[in-house]
Amino acid sequence: MDRDKILLTPGPLTTTLRTKLAMLKDWGSWDADFIAVTASVRKSLLNIVHGQESHVVVPLQGSGTFSVEAAVATVVPRDGHVLVLDNGAYCKRAGRLTTLMGRRCTIHESDEAHAVSASVLDGLLAQDPSITHVILIHCETGAGVLNPLQAVADVCARHGKGLIVDAMSSFGALEIDARTCQFDALIAASGKCLEGVPGMGFVFIRKAILDACAGNSQSLAMDLYDQYQYMEKTGQWRFTPPTHVVVALAEAIAQFEAEGGQPARLARYRANYEALVQGMAGLGFKPFLDPAEQAPIIVTFHAPTHPNYDFKRFYECAKQYGFLLYPGKLTQVETFRVGCIGAIGPNEMRQAVHAVAQTLQTLGIAQG
Amino acid sequence: MDRDKILLTPGPLTTTLRTKLAMLKDWGSWDADFIAVTASVRKSLLNIVHGQESHVVVPLQGSGTFSVEAAVATVVPRDGHVLVLDNGAYCKRAGRLTTLMGRRCTIHESDEAHAVSASVLDGLLAQDPSITHVILIHCETGAGVLNPLQAVADVCARHGKGLIVDAMSSFGALEIDARTCQFDALIAASGKCLEGVPGMGFVFIRKAILDACAGNSQSLAMDLYDQYQYMEKTGQWRFTPPTHVVVALAEAIAQFEAEGGQPARLARYRANYEALVQGMAGLGFKPFLDPAEQAPIIVTFHAPTHPNYDFKRFYECAKQYGFLLYPGKLTQVETFRVGCIGAIGPNEMRQAVHAVAQTLQTLGIAQG
Repeated sequence: MDRDKILLTPGPLTTTLRTKLAMLKDWGSWDADFIAVTASVRKSLLNIVHGQESHVVVPLQGSGTFSVEAAVATVVPRDGHVLVLDNGAYCKRAGRLTTLMGRRCTIHESDEAHAVSASVLDGLLAQDPSITHVILIHCETGAGVLNPLQAVADVCARHGKGLIVDAMSSFGALEIDARTCQFDALIAASGKCLEGVPGMGFVFIRKAILDACAGNSQSLAMDLYDQYQYMEKTGQWRFTPPTHVVVALAEAIAQFEAEGGQPARLARYRANYEALVQGMAGLGFKPFLDPAEQAPIIVTFHAPTHPNYDFKRFYECAKQYGFLLYPGKLTQVETFRVGCIGAIGPNEMRQAVHAVAQTLQTLGIAQG
Repeated sequence: MDRDKILLTPGPLTTTLRTKLAMLKDWGSWDADFIAVTASVRKSLLNIVHGQESHVVVPLQGSGTFSVEAAVATVVPRDGHVLVLDNGAYCKRAGRLTTLMGRRCTIHESDEAHAVSASVLDGLLAQDPSITHVILIHCETGAGVLNPLQAVADVCARHGKGLIVDAMSSFGALEIDARTCQFDALIAASGKCLEGVPGMGFVFIRKAILDACAGNSQSLAMDLYDQYQYMEKTGQWRFTPPTHVVVALAEAIAQFEAEGGQPARLARYRANYEALVQGMAGLGFKPFLDPAEQAPIIVTFHAPTHPNYDFKRFYECAKQYGFLLYPGKLTQVETFRVGCIGAIGPNEMRQAVHAVAQTLQTLGIAQG
């Protein structure tokens, strides 16, 4: 039996058949029907963050990282100075792409086991007035930490600094309200908590700063200002869009809305998270993070200390039982990760725990 | 009846149902099964250009233009000097992205109705020894011109200049043989003549120059050297791949190979082209290009001069009859374009001509 495996990763995720079935048609990217799909996706995305008044949304081809790079390139002027609040792998990536494109970048490292601190940020901004922008990863999936978006946004607003939020793994699941939380740019992607397929990202840009973004980007493909202008004028993407991915996202968003939007999605993921952590505790697995720091998106578990444990074998065995786990991304501690997101519910999480139990048994791993 | 329309555009194209059905499964991007798909796609792509000995191939997320920008950013050193042989819209785009990223760029404009000239290039390179790289668009779909790849490659090789070929609309259909035609980089994409769905590109890079590419790119996402190194080491893409698009491409390539590879694809497209041009001639439509300059990929036709003609209405009406045409991209002459590529044969082209005939009749357009 070769049933499809369930993906317990930070993305690509398990999507519904309905979402995938939307890809069984070819669309002309120039055609009015496809222009309408793009417009509808953009409108729904703005609704999710209540950003109709304050923001525009610009979709972009490529993975989420392409959109992060595009957001920095578009929003930060060439003589800007970016501060990255770094508590994990995706923070480091944001710092790296900012430096590479030639923007001045300061990295403030903090412990990957804890959320970044808004009061530390307050001090850093007071200390160095040359900083123009702050980058925050909302849910740092390196370990799974939930960073304090609202508090960080408030500090940035008070200091008059631009805030760029990588909300890749939180958007659609955690609450983000543009009416009360000020950000210059916020980035997410199709293949995460909206449960579309991967292949495009999107960036919310604050209307008040939009005009100042013209000419910032040194990349043509990643110039979100140019993409925005063209899209407003023509309804089309500047360059060939991933049509099937866009249409799948539209279908995924329809299901997201029917489910009850962000609160319903969060409730389901929280139930997934609780089923997972509780079940894994029964097998002797301890989460790496304090529950207070944890987003219900992806959970990092300490790996078994038993000599029979080896992640590759553990992974392959759990896969035979129907579930794809994810490797850890921490440098100091041996861990693995399990995602709670995608078109799955607590029932699938309990099955996953059962698959892990079978895996332990198959590999002869006793848990202390 | 809402049958799917047939796309007569330069991409996205009509793809087979088999190709689209491959997207009905979710894949873990870290998983060995997906790693195998990526490896198999890369191997097949190298086979198509006979580049196993001389080149590597690096896939990249995003539209074809992302891969063109990435190729320039990766292959041209920061103090390089790029000459663009410009006979159309895609040449201009290549020039623009090269200039934007801060590389010195000289644009040599020539008539969009004619192929660029290898002997003119010879003179330009002799005149200005500071030029390090030449960009050529193989099939410039702005008008549909076929540019002389082999002759241009020979001139570049003789002068010791790097050649970057945008083969977006030709790859898989027109012959490209890396054993006899020397290029530093050659770019194409999933959603063109391989008849996959859009969402990724790929770049062939000459092995001999690969090491010198390290550190050239100012973009993290578009650094093909970094993408290559990571892929060689892990088999994975650096950032989330468009998994469904990759798997659809693998399926499209399997059909490409079963059809008989590039020669068979070219034969079908040539038959499409001939059915189209012959049928359209019967309706009084004249191609913009001399047949000797024309690639059998996309044909630019002079628009009717009748006062009832308006492209939007013409397009909408042909769409009602089942076919999506494409607007012209020439600045001086009123034209429209019809693609000959995609999972269609001469029968569909004859039906398309019939749809155009019905459109003329419906709109009351008499052709002179």
